[in-house]
Amino acid sequence: MKEVEYQEHFFPGTRQELLNKVKQSVKEKRYQHILGVEQTAVKLAEINQFDLEKASVAGLVHDYAKERTAAEFKVAIKQHQLDPDLLNWGNFIWHGVVGAEIIRDELRITDEEILNAVRRHTVGAVEMTTLDKLIYVADFVEPSRDFPDVEFARSLAYADLDQAVRFETKHTLQYLLNANQTVYPRAIDTYNQWVVKK
Amino acid sequence: MKEVEYQEHFFPGTRQELLNKVKQSVKEKRYQHILGVEQTAVKLAEINQFDLEKASVAGLVHDYAKERTAAEFKVAIKQHQLDPDLLNWGNFIWHGVVGAEIIRDELRITDEEILNAVRRHTVGAVEMTTLDKLIYVADFVEPSRDFPDVEFARSLAYADLDQAVRFETKHTLQYLLNANQTVYPRAIDTYNQWVVKK
Repeated sequence: MKEVEYQEHFFPGTRQELLNKVKQSVKEKRYQHILGVEQTAVKLAEINQFDLEKASVAGLVHDYAKERTAAEFKVAIKQHQLDPDLLNWGNFIWHGVVGAEIIRDELRITDEEILNAVRRHTVGAVEMTTLDKLIYVADFVEPSRDFPDVEFARSLAYADLDQAVRFETKHTLQYLLNANQTVYPRAIDTYNQWVVKK
Repeated sequence: MKEVEYQEHFFPGTRQELLNKVKQSVKEKRYQHILGVEQTAVKLAEINQFDLEKASVAGLVHDYAKERTAAEFKVAIKQHQLDPDLLNWGNFIWHGVVGAEIIRDELRITDEEILNAVRRHTVGAVEMTTLDKLIYVADFVEPSRDFPDVEFARSLAYADLDQAVRFETKHTLQYLLNANQTVYPRAIDTYNQWVVKK
């Protein structure tokens, strides 16, 4: 993969410096996943004529806060005066919505489009920007992902980003339901917007 | 089935008078479904030591407003100052939540436990009374219902009402997802409460 050289100052440093910070924040397995998401997001950005550097930064930071403790997330929710309802949920939701604040504080990334893509990468949103879609989909199909439909999801991602958002949204909900796992209500808003035939 | 003789004045009239009113409000096929729900709700009430007359009335009225027009529901939402967000949804939601108001107005049924069971019969609720559960489950397994798992659902209903609520909640969501149909966010609250393993 050709590496993106950072010139637009979304992150105040080089790509290598950002890589170092991300590597320190997560375990090796997750770091490899993050590299896969970056690589996939950049490829999807090329296909969809989107800023490669922005896709690279968003891909590298999307799971930056994933391994923080519940205690740290709860402090951040209060400190940043986020919706107190967030306290009722868990890591799955926090690492996106609350993670964006931790990224701003620790990595000095302030671009709202990047931070929104982090916020929305777990359950999507009714309205999604191109960057939101790139990260949401790259997270689902990056090379180390392995589930029965992943090859189909990958083809779809490179062929039609919106259809990939649709497929991922439905697939993830079905997975959660089959496993009796918690569904965040906002995931249903995404589903009703993207999957339901109007 | 032994018929319940009305003595507790939940409805100001006899069971036969209520039957006549219900029959006038819906098509024949739905009327038969309604009779099935009443019959099942009364059986489940016996098993669960619940007031048979209350179960009968709630069963007979649960779909009373189902065939009203969108225009009529919208007027009722405004007239009764219900949550304006309801206007974003459709008959599936309206016939329960808005239907309860129509039932109060037209049938002079004011018992809140009965009206709540009508309100909650489509998507359940985080907290459900015994009557809520009787109607929710009876609606799912009454004799004219026919779907692959209906026999299992029926056995469950007569064996364990809470397990039947759990099964129905998950089953209905899976059905909606498979069919790409709209999911009401409150149905997810019910799922998170009843189905997810804590």
